[in-house]
Amino acid sequence: MYYIGIDLGGTGIKAGLVDEGGKIICKAGCPTLVERGARPIVDDMARLCREVAQQAGVSFDEVRAIGIGLPGIQDPRTGHVPFCTNLYWHEVPVIEWMQETIDKPIFIGNDATVAGLAESVAGVSAGVKNSVFITLGTGVGGGIVLDGKVYSGSHGVGSELGHMITVLGGEECTCGNRGCWERYASATALIRMGKEALKDAPDSLILKLAGGDESAITAKHVIDAAKQGDSAAMKVFDCYVYHLCAGLVGIINFIDPEVIVLGGGVSHAGKFLLDAVRKKLPEMVFYKTMPYARVELATLGNDAGIIGAAMLGK
Amino acid sequence: MYYIGIDLGGTGIKAGLVDEGGKIICKAGCPTLVERGARPIVDDMARLCREVAQQAGVSFDEVRAIGIGLPGIQDPRTGHVPFCTNLYWHEVPVIEWMQETIDKPIFIGNDATVAGLAESVAGVSAGVKNSVFITLGTGVGGGIVLDGKVYSGSHGVGSELGHMITVLGGEECTCGNRGCWERYASATALIRMGKEALKDAPDSLILKLAGGDESAITAKHVIDAAKQGDSAAMKVFDCYVYHLCAGLVGIINFIDPEVIVLGGGVSHAGKFLLDAVRKKLPEMVFYKTMPYARVELATLGNDAGIIGAAMLGK
Repeated sequence: MYYIGIDLGGTGIKAGLVDEGGKIICKAGCPTLVERGARPIVDDMARLCREVAQQAGVSFDEVRAIGIGLPGIQDPRTGHVPFCTNLYWHEVPVIEWMQETIDKPIFIGNDATVAGLAESVAGVSAGVKNSVFITLGTGVGGGIVLDGKVYSGSHGVGSELGHMITVLGGEECTCGNRGCWERYASATALIRMGKEALKDAPDSLILKLAGGDESAITAKHVIDAAKQGDSAAMKVFDCYVYHLCAGLVGIINFIDPEVIVLGGGVSHAGKFLLDAVRKKLPEMVFYKTMPYARVELATLGNDAGIIGAAMLGK
Repeated sequence: MYYIGIDLGGTGIKAGLVDEGGKIICKAGCPTLVERGARPIVDDMARLCREVAQQAGVSFDEVRAIGIGLPGIQDPRTGHVPFCTNLYWHEVPVIEWMQETIDKPIFIGNDATVAGLAESVAGVSAGVKNSVFITLGTGVGGGIVLDGKVYSGSHGVGSELGHMITVLGGEECTCGNRGCWERYASATALIRMGKEALKDAPDSLILKLAGGDESAITAKHVIDAAKQGDSAAMKVFDCYVYHLCAGLVGIINFIDPEVIVLGGGVSHAGKFLLDAVRKKLPEMVFYKTMPYARVELATLGNDAGIIGAAMLGK
């Protein structure tokens, strides 16, 4: 049997036919075109499901279930998607609409959650019972896998790890609070800190790597400058790692997973980031002589969304 | 069948015979006398097990299992208690020693964890699948019940909720970090904030309630002064509630439990605390139009330790 996973983002819809082991057999996609509203997007998702099966030469009867990963949540009371960041969705009955033409079980998961599930099926946390996945991107997303299954909480509002408060009263967050972890551990935070550092270090390599245009600075520029030993960038990076570890320590002291997986844009810093986190974390964990979560980098990259969504139905 | 629960604290050892429904049939106890070391304490625990059964007129054969709640953790690798706050224990093989004279299954749990389990069996969160219990005492302890079972994490180091960082770089914590939640949400924090408030408000009722002796100020003095409308105390209390909610929001955004139960000394502020938390929390949760955890006060009081420890064996 096969599974279909759909990775719905603000830019594109990607669908994939996935086997039992989490391997992608065939992919298809189209642009999301957010402005056209929810219904045609959902229709395109249904169309892509048949397309990937056909392209792979697999009968649609051999597809057991369909999973959708999206930048939002499912309301367990209604089954609807109450809102979806970047898509301007409000109370969209995704499953009902899809099932008008597809008679199969359909599951919905948050995009960070399905990426975490993908890693725990076919990636770096494969076979691990309890893991937490973190996306370090524009914001900070979280996915929790407990006992091998996705955990979304009692009301479907859990695993919003970016909105743990680590600096109460600190930077303003889009959620209305001040000092959420994602204000300090996201790519956006790294860019902000990089720009702030230029005030005292206008000659920093950060600005040079951005072609002299402060508004063009990316997280990669800051990290690359730090890797090359630029002292202002190294200070920023140390500060970023400290803030990142503050949240990781909260995760460890809270649900003590076996593995914490770092994904998203900042994780492309690779070993440079991983080494810094692994060096800082031992000073900060509560039980200093007991084992605690391994921190690893995500390995599935852009395919994680498709694989994890597909595995929701397994 | 019956269960025996032991509540081991720095001052006293309390044991109780408990029925299937979490009701205490009979209690016995003795002082802990920490200075005598671990072995005689464990021997006393074994003695109290037989004593409570005997006093209740229940054959020891009718006792299915024994549970121990203590201010420490169990190392899942060894089964030993690697360290125990306030008892100066180091690598104590509690279960092995107890089983020299008692041929029954014996379980160990953290004291906050077993109190949480007790509430979820026979208290305010009875019947709830996912709940988080918080003790607001000298420190802040946490107990997690997921799917009706105690959750201690993959390495036994989870549910140390007091050591989530909410004010990175803030007050120094005993764990070596700065800004742990318990530095702001414990009774100790309320006392510290109360004393600080006296600098600007030396005539505050806080000091009067403490008999004019600043060193005698308790959390109850601060709360009672706030209840009576003392403006300095009300400011302290508002600040305390804000910090308390910062951690509660982290818990909600993380594992989204059905119920959060507040126990420990500060929870004796009762409805005054509960109303303040329930008023502040809605502004701070991430998904403002979705349901989230009910916040409730613990109901089992001092018996929670015995009941929850007993229920570890169920």
